[in-house]
Amino acid sequence: MSNTFGECFKITTFGESHGPAVGVVIDGCPPRLPLDVAEIQAELNRRRPGQSEFVSPRQEADQVEILSGLFDGHTLGTPIALMVRNADARSGDYANLENVYRPSHADYTTEAKYGIRDPFGGGRASARETLARVAAGAIARKLLDLVAGIEVVGWVDRVQNISAQVDPTTVTRSDVEAASSIRCPDKQAALAMEKLIASVRSQGDSVGGALCCVARNVEPGLGAPVFDKLEADLAKAMLSIPAVKGFEIGSGFAGTYLTGSQHNDEFVPPEAGDGRLSTLTNNSGGVQGGISNGEDILVTVAFKPTASIGLEQRTVNSDLEPVTTTIRGRHDPCVLPRAVPIVEAMMCLVLADHWLRQQTMKVVSGTPSSSFDSL
Amino acid sequence: MSNTFGECFKITTFGESHGPAVGVVIDGCPPRLPLDVAEIQAELNRRRPGQSEFVSPRQEADQVEILSGLFDGHTLGTPIALMVRNADARSGDYANLENVYRPSHADYTTEAKYGIRDPFGGGRASARETLARVAAGAIARKLLDLVAGIEVVGWVDRVQNISAQVDPTTVTRSDVEAASSIRCPDKQAALAMEKLIASVRSQGDSVGGALCCVARNVEPGLGAPVFDKLEADLAKAMLSIPAVKGFEIGSGFAGTYLTGSQHNDEFVPPEAGDGRLSTLTNNSGGVQGGISNGEDILVTVAFKPTASIGLEQRTVNSDLEPVTTTIRGRHDPCVLPRAVPIVEAMMCLVLADHWLRQQTMKVVSGTPSSSFDSL
Amino acid sequence: MSNTFGECFKITTFGESHGPAVGVVIDGCPPRLPLDVAEIQAELNRRRPGQSEFVSPRQEADQVEILSGLFDGHTLGTPIALMVRNADARSGDYANLENVYRPSHADYTTEAKYGIRDPFGGGRASARETLARVAAGAIARKLLDLVAGIEVVGWVDRVQNISAQVDPTTVTRSDVEAASSIRCPDKQAALAMEKLIASVRSQGDSVGGALCCVARNVEPGLGAPVFDKLEADLAKAMLSIPAVKGFEIGSGFAGTYLTGSQHNDEFVPPEAGDGRLSTLTNNSGGVQGGISNGEDILVTVAFKPTASIGLEQRTVNSDLEPVTTTIRGRHDPCVLPRAVPIVEAMMCLVLADHWLRQQTMKVVSGTPSSSFDSL
Amino acid sequence: MSNTFGECFKITTFGESHGPAVGVVIDGCPPRLPLDVAEIQAELNRRRPGQSEFVSPRQEADQVEILSGLFDGHTLGTPIALMVRNADARSGDYANLENVYRPSHADYTTEAKYGIRDPFGGGRASARETLARVAAGAIARKLLDLVAGIEVVGWVDRVQNISAQVDPTTVTRSDVEAASSIRCPDKQAALAMEKLIASVRSQGDSVGGALCCVARNVEPGLGAPVFDKLEADLAKAMLSIPAVKGFEIGSGFAGTYLTGSQHNDEFVPPEAGDGRLSTLTNNSGGVQGGISNGEDILVTVAFKPTASIGLEQRTVNSDLEPVTTTIRGRHDPCVLPRAVPIVEAMMCLVLADHWLRQQTMKVVSGTPSSSFDSL
Repeated sequence: MSNTFGECFKITTFGESHGPAVGVVIDGCPPRLPLDVAEIQAELNRRRPGQSEFVSPRQEADQVEILSGLFDGHTLGTPIALMVRNADARSGDYANLENVYRPSHADYTTEAKYGIRDPFGGGRASARETLARVAAGAIARKLLDLVAGIEVVGWVDRVQNISAQVDPTTVTRSDVEAASSIRCPDKQAALAMEKLIASVRSQGDSVGGALCCVARNVEPGLGAPVFDKLEADLAKAMLSIPAVKGFEIGSGFAGTYLTGSQHNDEFVPPEAGDGRLSTLTNNSGGVQGGISNGEDILVTVAFKPTASIGLEQRTVNSDLEPVTTTIRGRHDPCVLPRAVPIVEAMMCLVLADHWLRQQTMKVVSGTPSSSFDSL
Repeated sequence: MSNTFGECFKITTFGESHGPAVGVVIDGCPPRLPLDVAEIQAELNRRRPGQSEFVSPRQEADQVEILSGLFDGHTLGTPIALMVRNADARSGDYANLENVYRPSHADYTTEAKYGIRDPFGGGRASARETLARVAAGAIARKLLDLVAGIEVVGWVDRVQNISAQVDPTTVTRSDVEAASSIRCPDKQAALAMEKLIASVRSQGDSVGGALCCVARNVEPGLGAPVFDKLEADLAKAMLSIPAVKGFEIGSGFAGTYLTGSQHNDEFVPPEAGDGRLSTLTNNSGGVQGGISNGEDILVTVAFKPTASIGLEQRTVNSDLEPVTTTIRGRHDPCVLPRAVPIVEAMMCLVLADHWLRQQTMKVVSGTPSSSFDSL
Repeated sequence: MSNTFGECFKITTFGESHGPAVGVVIDGCPPRLPLDVAEIQAELNRRRPGQSEFVSPRQEADQVEILSGLFDGHTLGTPIALMVRNADARSGDYANLENVYRPSHADYTTEAKYGIRDPFGGGRASARETLARVAAGAIARKLLDLVAGIEVVGWVDRVQNISAQVDPTTVTRSDVEAASSIRCPDKQAALAMEKLIASVRSQGDSVGGALCCVARNVEPGLGAPVFDKLEADLAKAMLSIPAVKGFEIGSGFAGTYLTGSQHNDEFVPPEAGDGRLSTLTNNSGGVQGGISNGEDILVTVAFKPTASIGLEQRTVNSDLEPVTTTIRGRHDPCVLPRAVPIVEAMMCLVLADHWLRQQTMKVVSGTPSSSFDSL
Repeated sequence: MSNTFGECFKITTFGESHGPAVGVVIDGCPPRLPLDVAEIQAELNRRRPGQSEFVSPRQEADQVEILSGLFDGHTLGTPIALMVRNADARSGDYANLENVYRPSHADYTTEAKYGIRDPFGGGRASARETLARVAAGAIARKLLDLVAGIEVVGWVDRVQNISAQVDPTTVTRSDVEAASSIRCPDKQAALAMEKLIASVRSQGDSVGGALCCVARNVEPGLGAPVFDKLEADLAKAMLSIPAVKGFEIGSGFAGTYLTGSQHNDEFVPPEAGDGRLSTLTNNSGGVQGGISNGEDILVTVAFKPTASIGLEQRTVNSDLEPVTTTIRGRHDPCVLPRAVPIVEAMMCLVLADHWLRQQTMKVVSGTPSSSFDSL
C-alpha cells in the first residue's frame, strides 16, 4: 500500500499540497499513552514554512486538529486521526506552471503514473505531505521516550561543502535549536551555512547537503535479520523523504575504504555494575546483522539541492513542446533546516514500530538452559 | 512481517545457514509465464561459493528444487516454492566459536533479539539466505523481460580504492561476466582488484567497495509518490543485503555538492517518431518524486569489508568475558563479486513488484479531457 | 492492522462514535474515476439515523467532506480521505451509563482490551463507525459499475420470524427502496415487519433477522483458492459488521441437509452467441473453490436483536458490583433496515478489491497452447 | 496476498495437490518455544486420508519434514518451514477428467482465474492444501497452551440430519477421539452417523453437516473492534476451508429469532476469590464487539456434501461441450471427520495471532486513574 508505513505502529497519510487538508491516521499506537496536542504542534512548528529567511515563505499556520483516538489526554488504542487544513493553497503562483513539467520535479512522472494530476504544487509528491509524518512522529517519540527511554536527535551536518563538527554521542535537541535557525549545532559552521544559503538564494539558486540523525539508548535486539533489518527500514524511511538521494548507516561509504581488521567493532565486556556489552568503535552504526546492538544508531542522509529555483530553465510542457520556465512561488533555497524534524520523525516511526514488534518475541519466559550446552 | 518482501510480487524466505535447507515462497507471480528451472539455477551458480579464489571455498552445489507452482514449464499463478539443501553445514569450523560473539557479526544481536541462536554460522543473518533471493530474482527477471522488456545489469564498481570506468547506459551482463571473475567489466580495474583481493586474503584480512546496478527500458510511471517511492523500496532492498552500509540513487552524495541549477535534469522533447520525453542529464537516477521517468535507474551500493577475517581479534564471549578469536571457516576476502547477482535480484524484485502494482492504476480507460482545461 | 480492510482497494477507518469525527482513507482507488460527492452522500443518507420511526432518532446530518484525492470531479489515484463530523455527540443520555457494562455491548471487552475507553457510546465498536464503510463502499460501487458492470443489491429478507419472498436474480435497488422504509422488497412481508418492529419498540425490546445481498454480472475468476477465497473475504466483511452472528454463501446451512448429487451444480454449455458457461442451479452461490464462476453471488447475513433495549436489565459496573440499568438514548429497535447499505458497502469493497487484484493475473498474454495437450 | 494468513503469527502455504510437495512457512512464532516434530505429526495423522472406511483411501504417509526455524528442540524465532512430499500423486484416476469441469469443483474457476491449471486433482483448491494449515496449527496450539493456557476442541456436531448432544463447556479432545472414527463425542449419534455415511458411500453419493469448535480459557481482550473482530477473523478462517458454506458464532442464526431481552447476556460479578466477570448465558459466543469476554468461544461451521461423487453427472468440458462424467479416485463420502483437525487448526491460528497482537497493547504500564473520574 503506497501511503502506509510501519507494521505495528502504522501510519497512513493523505492529502495533496494544495487540496483541502493534509493528515494522517496512526493505527497501532498503544492505549493509555499520555498525549497533549501541544506536543504534536511543537514538532509541526519546527517543520512549518516561514520560520526564517532561509526557508519557504508559504504562509501556513499548520494548526493540527485531532479527529479521533484521544480521550481525556490519553490515547485510546484506536486510530489517531490528525488533520491540518491547507490555507495558502492554489495561489496564482502556479498559473504559469499548470502544463509545464518542471525540471527534476514530479510533474511529469505523476502524469505518467496516474494520467491525471492536480496542477497546483506537487500534489502528493510535495514536501507538504511530510507534515503528516512529523505529526505522527511526535507521537512515536512520546512512546519511545515513555516506554523505552530512547532519544532521537537530528541536525544539519553539511550544506554543500560546509561541514559541521558535531559529537553524535552528546549533541542534544536544544543544542540544535539553540545554535541557529539552520539547525546546525556547530555555531561557526552554522554561520557559514547561513551566508552560503543567503548568497545562493539571492542568485535564485539552491543548495543541498547532508543531515545526521542519532538514536541513543536503544536496547539491543530491535530489528530483524533479513528484509526488515533496522538499517533497511531506516533507509526506506529516509529515501521516502522528498529530495533525498543517499543514505548511510555507521561508517557508510567511507567504511568501504577500510580493511576488515580496521572496520570491525571490537566487543568489550560490561563495566562493573553495568550489564551491557559495548563496542570500542561504532562503525556498525549501532546495528549488526539488521538488529540493534545497544550502541548509538547513527545515519546520514543526502539531500539534493532544491529543484525549485528562480533561474530560468529549459524544459517541456504537457504538449511535449520545448519551453522555458521560471519558478515563482514559495520555495526553500535549502531544505535542510526544515528537514531535521522530518528525518527525526521518520527515525522515531521506525524505532517505535520495531520496539512494538519486538514485544511479541519476548512472550515465552525463560531461556532454554543454554543453546550451546546441549550440543 | 520480517521475512517477506514485496506487495504484489511477494517473496518469503526461510532457512538458517547451517540448517536443513534454505528456500523461498514466491506469491503473486502471474500465471502462464514460461519458466525453466535452468534459468533459476544459472543465477544461483553466479552467487554460489567456490567459483574462484576470490570468494568463499564453502562446498555447496546449491542445486535448486521446485516444490510447487510450476506445471509443464509454465507458472500456475500459485505460490512457487523453491528449496536448496545445505550440504557443507555444521562443520567443525564453528566448534571454537560457539559461544564467542564475533566482532561486527550478528551473533550478539541475534542472542539479544531472540534469547536463542543456532551457533553454527550466521543463522538467518548469514549471506547464505540470499540464495533464496537470487532464485526469486531470477523469476522476477524473467517476468520483467517478458512483459516489460526491462533489463537489469550490476557490476563491481570499486574495490576499496580501485575504481572502474563503466558506462551504465551500455554495459551488458555478458560484459560483466566475461571480463573477470571479479565481475568488474573494466578489465584493467578488474586486474588491479584481483591483485588487491589476493593480497588482502593472504594477510587474513578483507576489503569492501561499491557495486552499481542499472535498470534500462523502465517505463515511466513505476513507483509511488510517498512511502513506496521507487528509490525508497530500492534502498530498503539494498540495505537488507548483509554487509551493506550505504545507498545512492542517481547523483547520490556527490549531487549534494552541486547547486540546483547544476543538478536539475532538463527535459527534452521526444525525437521524431519516438513518443517519449527524455532528460539531458540523469542526476535523478531515473526516478523523480518516487516514480520512474523512463531514464536509466542507477543505484550505488556500499559494502563494508567482510567481518570474517583470519586475523586474531579481541572480543567477548556469551559469559561476557574478554576473549581473543581467530575465525576459520569458509569466508570471502571480498564479498563484492558474489554480491552482484544478489543486488541484481533485489532490483528485479522491486521492479517486478512495482510493475505489477502499476497495472491496477491503468484500469479506468480514457483520460479526463484534460485536468488543466477545466480550471 | 485492525482498522484497515482490503489489499488493493484498501480502506482505513477512524473515529469514535462520540468523538470529533468519523472518517476513512481509501488507498488504491484507481485514478481518473469520475466521482461526485453526491453519490457518496446518497449512500450515507440511506444509512443515516432518523430516517423513519423504525430506526434510531439520533440527529446527525452525516454530511460528508472530502479532504483529499479528488480533483475536478475525478479521482487522482492518491488517498481519498472522507470525514463526517459528529454532531449529536456526548449527550446526557450516557451520564448514567458511564461506568456500567451494558449487557451484550462492547463496554467491558473494550476496557479489557485497552484498559481505557471513551464512556460516551460504543467508541469504535459503535455502528456509527460503519458510516465510513458506507462512504468508501459508494466509491467501490462506482468503480465496479464503471469498469466491470457489476451490480450489488441488498435487502431485508427476514425480521425475526417474518420472511420475505424475493427473487435474487431480478430484485433491484429501487425495488428495495420503493417498497417500504424497512428495505424489504416484498411489500406484504414489509408491512408485517413494520408492525412487528413497532410492537417490539413499544415494549422497549428489539428484534433481529437476516439480510440477503446479491452481486450480479461478476466475471468468472475473481477470488483466490486458499485463504482469500471470495466467500472467506465476504464472511470476514460481514462478520465485521456490528451485531452480525452468522454468514452463509449459496446454500449455506440448508445445503448441509442435501446429498452431493442433490447439491452439485450441473454445468451447462453457453447459449448460442453467448460465450459463457453457466450452471443449472446455484447452490454454490456464485463461488467455487473460492473463485467466482459467473453466477450470482448470494450471501445471507444474520443480525442479532439490538443489544440496546429500554427494558431494565441486570448487569455489573466497572467496580464489579451488580447493578440494574435501563438504556436510554437513541437506538434502533431493529438494525436491519439501516444495515442494508452497510452490507452492500462491504460486498462492494470485497469485490472491488478482488477485481483489482485479478488485474495482475492477466499480464502474461496468450495461454500455453493447452495445459492438457502437452501431457 | 492470497496464500498468507495472520498478522503476527503468519503462515504462508504452498503446494498443489499432485505436485512435488505441500508445505508452509510460519513467520512470527516466538523464539524459545519447546517444539517436538512428533506434536506436529500427531495432528497431521488426524487429518490424513486412509484412517477409516469413512474417509478417502488416498495413500499418503504425510510425513512432515522441518526445513528451518528449529534448533535443539526449540523455536529460533525465525521462519519455520515444514514440508510434506506428495506420494500418491498424479495417478491414472484423473486421466479421464483432465479436460472435464467437475460439477461444484474448482476446475472451471481455476481455469477462469489463471488461464492454466494442473489437471491432476484440485491443485491449490484441493483439501490437500489443508495439511499445511494443520501442521502450522499444531505449533499455534503449542504456543496457546504454553503462554495462555487456551484449549481448543472441535467435533462433528451433525451429519446431514443426525445431530449430536455435546456439552461445549466440558467436551475434551480425548472424548472426541475416543468415541468413534467419526470424531463425534456423542457415541449414539456417532453410530448413526457411521451408518448414514456407509449407506451414502455405497450409493456413490456424499453428505455434509456441521462442525462445532470451542476455545476455552481465553482471556478477555483478544480481538479488535472493527474489521479484525475475533468473529470476523474466525469467519474468514472457517470459510477458507474447502466445502464450507456457512459460519455462526454463539447463537448464530437461531439467535435472530429471539428478542433483545431474551438474547442479551447478563453480566454477573466475580465469585469470591475469582477476579473475573462472567455472563449468565453465552449467546455472544465469547465475543462482544469483536473482542473476547472470557467466556467460551463457540463457532459452528457448515460443510456442504462432498462434490466428488461416484454417480454419473452431466457437465461441460474445456471445449464447452456437454459431457457426462463419473468421478473415480480417492474421495471422502463425508469430509467432516477429517475436517475436525482443520477447523481446530484454523481456530488455533486465529487465536495465536490475536494473542500475540494483544501484547503490543499492554506496553504502557498503569491505567489513567480512571477514565471516568475525570469527566
